[in-house]
Amino acid sequence: MNELVTKAKKASEITAKLGATSTEEKNEALKLMSEKLMNEIDYLLKENEKDIEAGRSNGLSDGLLDRLRLTETRIKDMATALLQLIELPDPIGEVTFETERPNGLELKKIRVPLGVIGMIYEARPNVTVDAASLCLKTGNAVLLRGSSSAIHSNKALVNVIHRALEKSSLPKEAVQLIEDTKRETAEQMFKLTEYLDVLIPRGGAKLIQSVVEKASVPVLETGVGNCHVYIDDTANEQMAVDIVVNAKTQRPSVCNACETVIVHQDWAKFHFTSLVDALVDQGVELRGDDAARKLDARISVATEEDWQVEFLNLTLAVKVVNCLEEAIEHIGNYGSKHTEAIISETEKNVNQFFTFVDAAALYHNASTRFTDGFEFGFGAEIGISTQKLHARGPMGLEALTSSKYIILGTGQIRS
Amino acid sequence: MNELVTKAKKASEITAKLGATSTEEKNEALKLMSEKLMNEIDYLLKENEKDIEAGRSNGLSDGLLDRLRLTETRIKDMATALLQLIELPDPIGEVTFETERPNGLELKKIRVPLGVIGMIYEARPNVTVDAASLCLKTGNAVLLRGSSSAIHSNKALVNVIHRALEKSSLPKEAVQLIEDTKRETAEQMFKLTEYLDVLIPRGGAKLIQSVVEKASVPVLETGVGNCHVYIDDTANEQMAVDIVVNAKTQRPSVCNACETVIVHQDWAKFHFTSLVDALVDQGVELRGDDAARKLDARISVATEEDWQVEFLNLTLAVKVVNCLEEAIEHIGNYGSKHTEAIISETEKNVNQFFTFVDAAALYHNASTRFTDGFEFGFGAEIGISTQKLHARGPMGLEALTSSKYIILGTGQIRS
Repeated sequence: MNELVTKAKKASEITAKLGATSTEEKNEALKLMSEKLMNEIDYLLKENEKDIEAGRSNGLSDGLLDRLRLTETRIKDMATALLQLIELPDPIGEVTFETERPNGLELKKIRVPLGVIGMIYEARPNVTVDAASLCLKTGNAVLLRGSSSAIHSNKALVNVIHRALEKSSLPKEAVQLIEDTKRETAEQMFKLTEYLDVLIPRGGAKLIQSVVEKASVPVLETGVGNCHVYIDDTANEQMAVDIVVNAKTQRPSVCNACETVIVHQDWAKFHFTSLVDALVDQGVELRGDDAARKLDARISVATEEDWQVEFLNLTLAVKVVNCLEEAIEHIGNYGSKHTEAIISETEKNVNQFFTFVDAAALYHNASTRFTDGFEFGFGAEIGISTQKLHARGPMGLEALTSSKYIILGTGQIRS
Repeated sequence: MNELVTKAKKASEITAKLGATSTEEKNEALKLMSEKLMNEIDYLLKENEKDIEAGRSNGLSDGLLDRLRLTETRIKDMATALLQLIELPDPIGEVTFETERPNGLELKKIRVPLGVIGMIYEARPNVTVDAASLCLKTGNAVLLRGSSSAIHSNKALVNVIHRALEKSSLPKEAVQLIEDTKRETAEQMFKLTEYLDVLIPRGGAKLIQSVVEKASVPVLETGVGNCHVYIDDTANEQMAVDIVVNAKTQRPSVCNACETVIVHQDWAKFHFTSLVDALVDQGVELRGDDAARKLDARISVATEEDWQVEFLNLTLAVKVVNCLEEAIEHIGNYGSKHTEAIISETEKNVNQFFTFVDAAALYHNASTRFTDGFEFGFGAEIGISTQKLHARGPMGLEALTSSKYIILGTGQIRS
């Protein structure tokens, strides 16, 4: 047995014990983790520096180096997040359905942990603490498989977590790091149905696609967001401009940022220049169709690919349409079913948009940037699901649970 | 494009329309389907006879021929089931969560159809009508891929369904049969993520395993049940005997039948003969461990495989244990996480069993045979999920739904 299988087997052996752990014990472990993180800032920074140096000599971009970097503030933020997690209600044991059958059987559906969660992610070491703590709060064991570029940081963080768990009543095998970062090991993880209950990939589109295509372990697919804002003919000018600017520029690198704005021609006739002015002012580069370019010369030609991609930067595609139906059709063809918004003062059109656009989150007169576990009030987020099974949209603690039916009888048999 | 891709694409094109169909329209279509089935009994029997004849000359077993056979009664039962489905509440549109955020955003989570469901099943033609009607009631489009041995029956049934849909306001592409029964076509279906939202395999362990291993489309895994009844030291003698006999013999061929009985040695000391007498009386063949065989010579030797398999016939494995923990360990090693039961008068032990046994359904003092959508009061069943994501245990109409977040704003942007 290699490292992966050995650790996965250990994790699966403690799932029953973890599932039976009380809320108090789990919260105590989270508190210890928070304290240890605060006490070990120097050690964590020193280990992280090794990854940063290696990253630099491997020519990682500034953006990637920034994602990889731990700072005193970032570590303190992690410690604070752990304390906030303590305050959230524990979903485990919650009765979600209850009935008494005519034959006297008492039936209850209760929330239980999923079991063993395999987390496959890229260079952000904060995911290590984030995933470990959310899994722990929900009584799951977690196998963490980060990228080789963050291996020193991840080892150090899991070391610190283990020292905290050793002081708690939870087994330290609840959180395990797979130190072998070979691609074949990740692919073996995709198939380890004997020990893993679910895989959660977090990272770029390529990573997620690879997991979805190859895994036989059930997957919670997260992430890719090709989000649109549609400005209807009756949209309020200032509101529409403010929302598009916010959705595009407030944090362009994230999945709920806007990638294409679709404008009704009747709105464009009167307000298009304000919209383009505001976007250009914020440094946005616009690529549009012929109709958009006829209205404003600052817009360059959009290629077929521009409608398809997540730019994740200050580029925005612009399309002018004759009617709502054309907007809905474009979103159906190019959207990633993550988040879509309509700005309109016509109720009928809003309802049509809500009915005929298929996405995890649909907005009327608000920015796409709100699709987020914290903004939705869940208090935590393990990712944003773009699949339709199990959980769709921002996933909080409940998404990390399954259920059990408990049936109490008095000798009932089936006739 | 081959038949599969053409039909899948058509199905995906009508999902928005189907999702927007009213409960009344869907119920009207179900009523028309029920009437058409009743009117076409002769045609259906004639077409079914072709499959039966082919099956006979291909040497199908009597059991398989029986599963394949349509009779007047069976068709009438299908028609009645459709009328019963009309009475069930429509889950689509149901608001399952609602909140107002501090920034004034109004957030609602509503149930929507999954989209396009791929149903892969074996020789039972009744699954054709069953799956079509449950998918239709929940606003889903369905691609049916039955086995070649039932192709004439399936074509005839889908013909009848189409004639009903043509009279309704629903598009007939809501229900489509893949007539090409080649294995490669099924395997192409496993990977058709562009058009299919979920696959539901129904049939034997081999079929299900193949779908789970190879599919990149998300799977709702159904079925395999290696279920245990554990008789604790304090179990009431008559109740324990009645429950084991019922769980084993009432319908041995189904997934919620009992495959192994585990007996506490202290109970066995006094009551084992009654148990064995009752089982042998019902024609059950017993295979046990050494301890069981020492207690009763009518028990033959159980092999390692006997603890692992779903017998699906009148064979039962018997194990005698020293304590509850040993029973829980055995279930953990061999159970399929479907249904497990404890017969006991000791509350502490029942709670320990409920906490440490991981399965979709856990019973105290009742037969395992109750794990069923109808017995649970769901009014319908698309299968019994043995996975932990999305739905676990009997799946009714709600299991065929996903969700959308609808967020109403007044110009909110994120700061």
